[in-house]
Amino acid sequence: MGGDFAPKATIAGAVLALREYPHLTKLFLVGDKDRIEAELKANEYSDPRIEILHTTQIVEMNDSGLDAVRRKKDSSISRATDLVKNGDAEAVVSAGHTGAAVTAAAIKMRTLPGVERPAIAAVMPTETNYFVLIDAGANTESTPLQLVQNAIMGATYSEHVLGYKNPSVGLMSIGTEDEKGNDLTKDTFDGLKKSGVNFRGNIEGHDLFENPVEVVVCDGFTGNIVLKTCEAIAHAIFRWLKHELYKSPFTKLGGLLAKPAFKTIYKKTNAEEYGGMPLLGVNGICIIAHGGSSPVAIKNAIRAAAEQIKHEVNPQIVARIKSYNEKAAASQPAPAQA
Amino acid sequence: MGGDFAPKATIAGAVLALREYPHLTKLFLVGDKDRIEAELKANEYSDPRIEILHTTQIVEMNDSGLDAVRRKKDSSISRATDLVKNGDAEAVVSAGHTGAAVTAAAIKMRTLPGVERPAIAAVMPTETNYFVLIDAGANTESTPLQLVQNAIMGATYSEHVLGYKNPSVGLMSIGTEDEKGNDLTKDTFDGLKKSGVNFRGNIEGHDLFENPVEVVVCDGFTGNIVLKTCEAIAHAIFRWLKHELYKSPFTKLGGLLAKPAFKTIYKKTNAEEYGGMPLLGVNGICIIAHGGSSPVAIKNAIRAAAEQIKHEVNPQIVARIKSYNEKAAASQPAPAQA
Repeated sequence: MGGDFAPKATIAGAVLALREYPHLTKLFLVGDKDRIEAELKANEYSDPRIEILHTTQIVEMNDSGLDAVRRKKDSSISRATDLVKNGDAEAVVSAGHTGAAVTAAAIKMRTLPGVERPAIAAVMPTETNYFVLIDAGANTESTPLQLVQNAIMGATYSEHVLGYKNPSVGLMSIGTEDEKGNDLTKDTFDGLKKSGVNFRGNIEGHDLFENPVEVVVCDGFTGNIVLKTCEAIAHAIFRWLKHELYKSPFTKLGGLLAKPAFKTIYKKTNAEEYGGMPLLGVNGICIIAHGGSSPVAIKNAIRAAAEQIKHEVNPQIVARIKSYNEKAAASQPAPAQA
Repeated sequence: MGGDFAPKATIAGAVLALREYPHLTKLFLVGDKDRIEAELKANEYSDPRIEILHTTQIVEMNDSGLDAVRRKKDSSISRATDLVKNGDAEAVVSAGHTGAAVTAAAIKMRTLPGVERPAIAAVMPTETNYFVLIDAGANTESTPLQLVQNAIMGATYSEHVLGYKNPSVGLMSIGTEDEKGNDLTKDTFDGLKKSGVNFRGNIEGHDLFENPVEVVVCDGFTGNIVLKTCEAIAHAIFRWLKHELYKSPFTKLGGLLAKPAFKTIYKKTNAEEYGGMPLLGVNGICIIAHGGSSPVAIKNAIRAAAEQIKHEVNPQIVARIKSYNEKAAASQPAPAQA
């Protein structure tokens, strides 16, 4: 039921996924039964792999994440996450209230052993590669330890799902010199050097696409702003360009001829191609889809969930976080004797 | 001497400004005398309005702002700021170390009465308008009061320099609902409502260009990341598009025909057109130019300094900050009697 165009877009996306992915053995559709059935009918689709789970409550955008989970136990996000918690499903996909999805996953699935806080990993394109931006919005306040754990989780995802060997990690800051940044990044810098990840130091906005690392670490407030600003400026440029191209017959013709190039770049910068962002660090799989998800975006989010099941990222995260936590504990000075 | 291409680009920019702006009555060039004279010679330029002030020390990028000012009293930024402090110049322009320029201005010129911290105001384009992003990087940590003062200073600049009547103000956050944000934005929200500015509430990345306000308020860490990320993605898109256009003769021809449209948009998204960012809240005029400034960017930064002199923004800021501070003090509960 979550998302700007739900349940229409979510159900249409589910239908696309079921049509394209025969290896999906079961898909729960969680929400208002009548509305789900109406949308399935509108899509002229029925499938024995679908099971509808009826829910009655709606999470509003101004509910807090905690309220949404505690007070609205019969919301679609609560019930869908229960399915994973109880072992009936392996993954949950939501295009709804991000805070509610994060809180539901953290409370019901619990965090992986050793992980302080789950974090959202957004996969973003450079000209030839992809990088993971983590945290893209799960936690608005973070500690240095949580940022180091974000780096470890992001690097694990980059390696095991995206296939990068020993991915490089950059700390999102406002200058590349070691001394630059705010209190949080300065306090995180040394931890990252000792974390075992391939840490390249501070990076700034200019490096994101021109001198890219494979993992960009930040708190969720900063990451969410980077993510949405990138989307916003990309949309703005294409919109401005379109208006400009219509200003003369020559540029209009030019625009028509150049259309395949525009399409390629537009596709690259279009969030819906990336199919949702995994919430890393929870004991299960949770995919956060864009609030404005189209049916194609929902289909891709379901595919992302299936991929994460296949790659078994969570055991790798647990092992690497355990190793880091043990090393960090060993390097702490012994408590002073009274 | 500051900037990635200094003193070559800075002197060439100064020459452009002197050629174009007859109303400039005097331009101090502050730095290594021999190198400045060599650059002037390379530009085949001499002008009685130029006065060279020789300095011997260099601020390095890994100096802290405070170190740069305290320990390097004979750096070009220190000496240039002294000129304003002593009334010999009305404005200082620097493309060098931002922290050094901010600290030099704050210490030597001092902040305006009632202003806690100066803030950098970046003017950014939307399709049809401009907005002020404040703080774009002066302070990496801010208090709610400082953010409210940023709003007042940004709105004053928008009104008196950019010409917007009662400019709308948005608080940079990660969701538009009042409850969304980090601790800092949540603690700032009520202050902005009571600040007398035309506060529109929280805005997020998507709103920057599609649903724009005239003033975007944030701390300097967030603002600097927004600014550099916007520049980075704009450059990336144009670079990707160029590569794509070269892939077939048709798209290549299309690209040629569409060139005027590309040029318009490229110019719009190109930082150097905007000529440097004013540091608001100091008792004098300080323009922070882009580190990568070309001669044209330096010329525009000098023009921005001249415009700010003309518009007399500082007395307006003092009056509005005073009025806010008095109201804020009056609304404090009286101290309890012992």
